[in-house]
Parts: sequence; structure tokens; C-alpha cells
Amino acid sequence: MIFSSRLIEDAVAEFSKLPGIGKKSALRMVLHLLKQDTAEVRSFADALLHMKEDITFCSECHNISDTAVCAICVNTQRNKNQICVVENIRDVIAIETTQQYNGVYHVLGGILSPLDGVGPEQLQIQSLVDRVHKNPDMQEIIMALNPTLEGDTTVYYISRQLQQLPVKITTIARGISFGGELEYADEMTLARSISKRLPIDNYVNISGQ
Amino acid sequence: MIFSSRLIEDAVAEFSKLPGIGKKSALRMVLHLLKQDTAEVRSFADALLHMKEDITFCSECHNISDTAVCAICVNTQRNKNQICVVENIRDVIAIETTQQYNGVYHVLGGILSPLDGVGPEQLQIQSLVDRVHKNPDMQEIIMALNPTLEGDTTVYYISRQLQQLPVKITTIARGISFGGELEYADEMTLARSISKRLPIDNYVNISGQ
Repeated sequence: MIFSSRLIEDAVAEFSKLPGIGKKSALRMVLHLLKQDTAEVRSFADALLHMKEDITFCSECHNISDTAVCAICVNTQRNKNQICVVENIRDVIAIETTQQYNGVYHVLGGILSPLDGVGPEQLQIQSLVDRVHKNPDMQEIIMALNPTLEGDTTVYYISRQLQQLPVKITTIARGISFGGELEYADEMTLARSISKRLPIDNYVNISGQ
Repeated sequence: MIFSSRLIEDAVAEFSKLPGIGKKSALRMVLHLLKQDTAEVRSFADALLHMKEDITFCSECHNISDTAVCAICVNTQRNKNQICVVENIRDVIAIETTQQYNGVYHVLGGILSPLDGVGPEQLQIQSLVDRVHKNPDMQEIIMALNPTLEGDTTVYYISRQLQQLPVKITTIARGISFGGELEYADEMTLARSISKRLPIDNYVNISGQ
């Protein structure tokens, strides 16, 4: 693309560095911002800078946080004896958005992947073991990792680390998604959802309470 | 979506105001920026602010510009006696990117649309007529507007304004796109591309020189 303005060109170049944004979408966004008030554009730029400069990671669960300990970990209403282990902060947001989970989290920061050079020491696994050690009332560790080979390996590795401790280890249910169609489900999911079938009573109560 | 961080929430809200960006894409972009260096994020924010604060519109052709007269209008290599009339700056970028046009532009800032309250006085039509008046050597006005009812109305209106002046008025060719398939073309385009058929010699030379 040939722009007649250097300023536009720079702004488009910055936007097209974002994931999933090509030059045409970037230009569309830039021209949209150009039409807004200066105050609007300033608040956009400020929101980005504030986020980048002020955000930190929770010292408890390694979730992103505005404070040293995140809003979920300091919330006294939440069950500190139940930890949901997730790969990244996107998963925390996804689970929080369901409003069905009342425990706390532990963000690993990735999953075991020897091919990518990610071993246990690159992840927050030791700090999870320490958290379980430190809390004698800990009841349950819920593994909510993606159902890939690496995800299953990570679940297996962590459960080996925790096996000496008196804590229940569970994993989220796999099966056919709501709205999913049986004929398009992969064999493994379908097979697992048949073998782990539930009585109708449980099925009706989707919140599992 | 429930975020555990106010800073992230603000940044996602700003991104999701952009056209075509939902909350999930906005989050993906925000988390991408969060992983970059502070210097990268600062350069992103700066590019936006600079663009918004420093950009202006060319006093000649009304294209966006970094200076009072845009880079295209000040370029002495370009033919000032040929004006391509377009709806907006996106069209200028599209035509410039083809690298096939060596004249100058005139950006109308929209097209005639009585239903949306856009009349001739809202557009840069008078300034176009003035440009043609002022230049006794003017050769050609190329109408490059979208082939809609409003576009055709605008072409008709402008050509009426210019009809007393000794200048050739042309419109860009309509027809089947390269890579387009005959069977999927609409009737009007197909009919027009048959009635305006070209001898093979012209067709081979796509640049039309």
C-alpha cells in the first residue's frame, strides 16, 4: 500500500503488528481513529500506556493484577481451598465469565512442551506445590488445561508432584459442547462423552451444584 | 467478560470501540501488547497521538497530508492537468497502490446522498470546479466513484457543473474483475462489459497506456 502521509503510514504499521490484523484492517482502524476527537484518541493511547506500565502479576496465583495480590485472591468470599490450574490469563477470564466458579486460580504461564523448550522450571509448577503444602485445609486442585498432548502431559506431571499430599485432583469434564453436533464431533471426544455419560438428573443441572 | 484487572478492562474497552473488533479480538490484542516491551507500546501510543494531532488536509486536493499541501500535489513529476475525483482517502490509497496513475486527485469527502442529508455544499464540489477554472491547461477529469446510485448521481451532478468548461470528463471502466467469474457477475456488470467490449490489443495491455 502506498500512503501519501508518513503519519498514517506509521500508525498503520503499528496496528498491523497486532495479531490477526492485516494492512487493510489496520487502515480502517486508523481512519476510524482519525475521525474521533483528539480526547478520544488520547484516552485510547493512555489506556494502553497505563496498562503496560502499571500492571503486575499476582504474587499468589500469577494472574495479571493491578495490585500485588489480585482481586480474586484478596476476595474473602472465595474458597481458598479450591485451586483451578490454568495455562494463561485468557483461561482465567473465560472461567470467570461463566460466573460458576468460586475458588481461586493458579496460572502456570504455559504448558510443558519439550519441543518448544518449555520444561517444569519455566512454569509456575513449584509455586503451586508450595501453595498446596502451605495450606493444610486445601481440598481440591482442578486441572483446567486444554485437551492436547501437552496439556495431558502437564496434568500428569503436576498430579505426580502432588500425589503425596492429601488433596483431591480433578480435571474439567470433556464431552460434546452445548450446540455441538454429534456427527461433527471427533471420535475421541464422542467416545469419552459416551464412556463418561451422566444420569439425567446431573445433566439437567448444568451448574453442577 | 469478567476481567480481574481494571487496567486490562479499560484497554479492552478502548480496542473494542474500533470497527470490526469484538471483545475477544480486543482482549487478544491487549494481551499481545502486554507481552511487548514498554518501548513498543509507547511507540504504538505515540504513533496514534502524532497522527491525530499533526495530520491535516491538503488545501489543494483535500487528501490527508502531513503538510499544508500533500506530497502528491507538490510532486513536480505528476500531471497537474489530470484530476482523479474520488470519494475518500481510502480510494486515493487504493489507486496510488496500483502505481498506474500519474495525475493528481480531488477528494470529495463523500458522495451526494439526499437521504443522509449530504448535498453538494457538504462536499468538495465547488473547490473542484474552481480548480478546473483556475487551470487553463486542464485536460481530463476522471470520475472514480463507486458504481452505486449515489455514485452515479454524483458523477452526473459534477459533469453538469463542468460542462461549460473545455475539459474531457471520463469515468473508470466497469466490467468483470480479474479473477472474477462470469457466472457470478451481476447482470448489469455483465451487460455493460459486453456492450463496452474492447479489441484484444487493448485488453492485453492492462495498464491502458
